[in-house]
Amino acid sequence: MPNSRPLPTIPVNTIGRLSLYRRLLLEQVEAGARQVYSHELARLAVSTPAQVRRDLMQIGHTGSPKKGYELKQLKENINALMDDSDGQGIGLAGIGYLGRAIMNYFGGRNPKLTIKAAFDTDPDKINRVISGCRCYHIDQIPEVVKKENITIGIVTVPSSAAQDIVNRFVRTGIKAIINWAPTPLQTPPDVFVESRDITMSIEKAAFYAKTLNSKKK
Amino acid sequence: MPNSRPLPTIPVNTIGRLSLYRRLLLEQVEAGARQVYSHELARLAVSTPAQVRRDLMQIGHTGSPKKGYELKQLKENINALMDDSDGQGIGLAGIGYLGRAIMNYFGGRNPKLTIKAAFDTDPDKINRVISGCRCYHIDQIPEVVKKENITIGIVTVPSSAAQDIVNRFVRTGIKAIINWAPTPLQTPPDVFVESRDITMSIEKAAFYAKTLNSKKK
Repeated sequence: MPNSRPLPTIPVNTIGRLSLYRRLLLEQVEAGARQVYSHELARLAVSTPAQVRRDLMQIGHTGSPKKGYELKQLKENINALMDDSDGQGIGLAGIGYLGRAIMNYFGGRNPKLTIKAAFDTDPDKINRVISGCRCYHIDQIPEVVKKENITIGIVTVPSSAAQDIVNRFVRTGIKAIINWAPTPLQTPPDVFVESRDITMSIEKAAFYAKTLNSKKK
Repeated sequence: MPNSRPLPTIPVNTIGRLSLYRRLLLEQVEAGARQVYSHELARLAVSTPAQVRRDLMQIGHTGSPKKGYELKQLKENINALMDDSDGQGIGLAGIGYLGRAIMNYFGGRNPKLTIKAAFDTDPDKINRVISGCRCYHIDQIPEVVKKENITIGIVTVPSSAAQDIVNRFVRTGIKAIINWAPTPLQTPPDVFVESRDITMSIEKAAFYAKTLNSKKK
């Protein structure tokens, strides 16, 4: 059983789904369940039993047809894969509506993963605590990233500022960036970037709305 | 050349990238360019020339090795694929920080795609114009969706309210949903759902931060 080292061969979409499965499993554990079947987890995740089985097989889990998956063991193995035992800090740059939405939403949700600092250039925000998070000037990124063990950078600044912020994050040694700015970012090949482009998601949905509506006619 | 009907066989990730390419092409057109090479577009999109060529081949475009792609024709073909000639309306439910971020950001960006209405249950928000957008009570979803030709629903309500909102959207005939609530949604099979789960994207990035940092050591 792989339970201490991350498996670099796990596909990125599987990693995303494991994050979701873990949340759903926690709800099941809290409700007193001890096993879960792939078809149950698939229903909760709005997926298929085959997809769930494929994903869990990636981390070495095979359920029993009679008993399903043992919940506690499964949850612990996902934790071992996903979490850093020392915990990881997150730095967020850009304290606008989107930044605050993320700070409010994510605060306190995962004990191993905490938004430790927010960065901006607005003097009205710096040195304050906003949504439970201490705010700093972007020039303080190097010292704060080091002090707070920040390993993940979230970018919620406007497009025009995004590349500069990412360069600052990357220079500190941060290896994972989530980019909400609507512009592609240039980063070294050993930096993971997750793009959350709002225009892209809306235009994609619009394409399917148009396609599905034209079928209806 | 396919230029009037959407091609249902185009992969969903290609549709997303076409949305990005179009934005990048527009900047090139505005800068006075007439052609673009796959390697230039790849650099702007932070992708590879092979990926760009594959994506554009999906909509019937083959660039010339000498001249690259003809910009105007390419832009018009992406428009024909992506846009509805009558325009499409978007309805957004949940006027919190996240909803406002999306309203502020997307307002006026695409003339064929407009956030026409926002929905909430908070009496302080209803019947006001917030971020340029008229706000209504969620009970008004059926009438407003019809009146404003809304074909896309954005969900920025808390998890506990998300399924109810989606059911309301789906009952009006909306076929495309973008879900920012951190919970999977049950929808009929002919409804497209784009999930923008914040926890999933942060935990995914955290996994890669941990993996890439352990390699560094």
